[in-house]
Amino acid sequence: VFAITITLLVIDIGRPSPESGDLLQALIHQWPSYVAFIVSFIYVGVVWMNHHALFTHIRSVDRNLQWINLGMLMMTALLPFPTAVLAEALAQRHPDNERVAVALYALVSGLMSAAWIPMFRYLRRHPHLLASPDDLEYFTPQGIRPLTGVALYTLAGVVGFLSPLVGLALFVVMVTFYAFTSEGVRGQTRSTRPV
Amino acid sequence: VFAITITLLVIDIGRPSPESGDLLQALIHQWPSYVAFIVSFIYVGVVWMNHHALFTHIRSVDRNLQWINLGMLMMTALLPFPTAVLAEALAQRHPDNERVAVALYALVSGLMSAAWIPMFRYLRRHPHLLASPDDLEYFTPQGIRPLTGVALYTLAGVVGFLSPLVGLALFVVMVTFYAFTSEGVRGQTRSTRPV
Amino acid sequence: VFAITITLLVIDIGRPSPESGDLLQALIHQWPSYVAFIVSFIYVGVVWMNHHALFTHIRSVDRNLQWINLGMLMMTALLPFPTAVLAEALAQRHPDNERVAVALYALVSGLMSAAWIPMFRYLRRHPHLLASPDDLEYFTPQGIRPLTGVALYTLAGVVGFLSPLVGLALFVVMVTFYAFTSEGVRGQTRSTRPV
Amino acid sequence: VFAITITLLVIDIGRPSPESGDLLQALIHQWPSYVAFIVSFIYVGVVWMNHHALFTHIRSVDRNLQWINLGMLMMTALLPFPTAVLAEALAQRHPDNERVAVALYALVSGLMSAAWIPMFRYLRRHPHLLASPDDLEYFTPQGIRPLTGVALYTLAGVVGFLSPLVGLALFVVMVTFYAFTSEGVRGQTRSTRPV
Repeated sequence: VFAITITLLVIDIGRPSPESGDLLQALIHQWPSYVAFIVSFIYVGVVWMNHHALFTHIRSVDRNLQWINLGMLMMTALLPFPTAVLAEALAQRHPDNERVAVALYALVSGLMSAAWIPMFRYLRRHPHLLASPDDLEYFTPQGIRPLTGVALYTLAGVVGFLSPLVGLALFVVMVTFYAFTSEGVRGQTRSTRPV
Repeated sequence: VFAITITLLVIDIGRPSPESGDLLQALIHQWPSYVAFIVSFIYVGVVWMNHHALFTHIRSVDRNLQWINLGMLMMTALLPFPTAVLAEALAQRHPDNERVAVALYALVSGLMSAAWIPMFRYLRRHPHLLASPDDLEYFTPQGIRPLTGVALYTLAGVVGFLSPLVGLALFVVMVTFYAFTSEGVRGQTRSTRPV
Repeated sequence: VFAITITLLVIDIGRPSPESGDLLQALIHQWPSYVAFIVSFIYVGVVWMNHHALFTHIRSVDRNLQWINLGMLMMTALLPFPTAVLAEALAQRHPDNERVAVALYALVSGLMSAAWIPMFRYLRRHPHLLASPDDLEYFTPQGIRPLTGVALYTLAGVVGFLSPLVGLALFVVMVTFYAFTSEGVRGQTRSTRPV
Repeated sequence: VFAITITLLVIDIGRPSPESGDLLQALIHQWPSYVAFIVSFIYVGVVWMNHHALFTHIRSVDRNLQWINLGMLMMTALLPFPTAVLAEALAQRHPDNERVAVALYALVSGLMSAAWIPMFRYLRRHPHLLASPDDLEYFTPQGIRPLTGVALYTLAGVVGFLSPLVGLALFVVMVTFYAFTSEGVRGQTRSTRPV
């Protein structure tokens, strides 16, 4: 699902075909599509890596975990929708639409973060599903990350509703921050193929 | 196929880009797309889990089983089509189209259930394909589920043709029911990655 | 690639959304889309199974085999294009376009068959790539199948250019024939998951 | 990601449905779509094979390698966009748009090559990630290939900006060259399934 979502993002970049010879301007005009593509690509990429790292700590999966996991996949699979809406609104440069689109993007991104909360919560309460009891230590600091994500995306949504470009900048900052602090892959050396 | 279908559903959510500043209204107006996305996502998710659980009971696959399996995949891969038609008809709020779209969704969903009937039938008659003879007990109660599915989706189609919103409500109820009664993952603990 | 192609076919089924209440007629009007979806789905499904069966006979892959394989994947990945063109032309009911669309579908289907010829040829000449020397017997009768496919699709293209509906009927007959005679899965029992 | 990208390329081939009976002309008119499909399919195919071959030389993956890898996937996933823009511009036959589209295609293709530079650089500096120290010899000649790629695609972009058709011819030449000189699969016999 992660691999497919990350690859589908390209479909929503418009293919301009102006009648007259202003393809260059048309391509430049849709620069928000490129920013949105990159930000969403990296966000899904980080979540993919974290998800992959998470399951190296899990030994067995029960029914509830499967549903929690499906919820995480649903939020991830949904991301191309707000990405496309945001890119379009920014290209149109209509302030009211930009506000709404930034808020929508923040909402879905926040839900993507929120979907991790029950995962960590459930695993802390059912340590027998973990690969080893030591993995519990891994989950305690990790449990804060999705809460931070929800808080920051709520903030970005509110700020972005007032000033869309500040909201957009916040998305870029947050994805960069996520990328550099991602616990799941911190310094570890794994003998498997990367995601 | 399940992973791809579940991820393709997002493509059919419209990307509104109104000229004037009424993006919020445009987004709200297409609320049926979101309901349809969620209902179809969960339905494919449940079928995916059941399909995955099913194949843990199967040891070897013969030619006939492969064809039955391809039929199941075909019905699943088809689901984004009635999902999109239904969402569009509900957004238009044209009563006649809503009736037809609800009936179409019920038809394809019913066929998705029906595609499981020959699978269970064939496995009961060819127990040597199963991982262990005990698995036969698993298939007897399971064999009733697709029949119930076909009956309920036929009912939902007929009711929905008379009153589309009742039909839609029935889809939501049925997916919730499926999610909670899914035999395939009931209480079991498996040592594999979730679907 | 097979799984993705088979699932992408659904995207090309039109999502009708008539302004007035004639959704039923619009859905019925595009019946060729459903036939084309089913025929192409089964064709890719058969090729997928044969491809899967083929690689159980191959022990190692060299550079040339990889290129031959990429050619097979290219022809398969292309199939949704003539499928969509054919469905659209049949829905329009314009005789000249139907002829062209049937010929195009026959061309790509024939190329899909043709792509298997170098595969069998190469493996017969490089038996050290096979899992066992006995597998050579498997490849001798199989080698005739793609040649038959090319001949029949050429015939279907020519006949279809004269009478599109006869051409379409030939596609259905051929896919049915392929499905029932597919060597790759004949009566064999394999201990792997189906495609 | 490679498999999905390679299969998504077909979506951007237009599905012409002219009102009158000139489907044949409409299909011929969009010949650049077919050339662009084939060139991009082979390019992604070559990169896929090289990527696959590369990871047979890598024993373990650290955080930095994962990010470098994600960058390579991002450039690959982006390719359908310039492919579609180029095909459309060539079909329109507007000189100014053709120049821009060829330059855009060269830019993304060049970035796809450039994304391999940090990969080889990082592996040369961290040989403990390799499967065996002998693999270092493999990476020294390979390290020149992406640099050549970047140089040639820059050249193709500049030349193509002056004469689009010469640029297009250069793309075809380069993909052919890549296909025949691809180190990753040169003469080697591997016991795995092809990509």
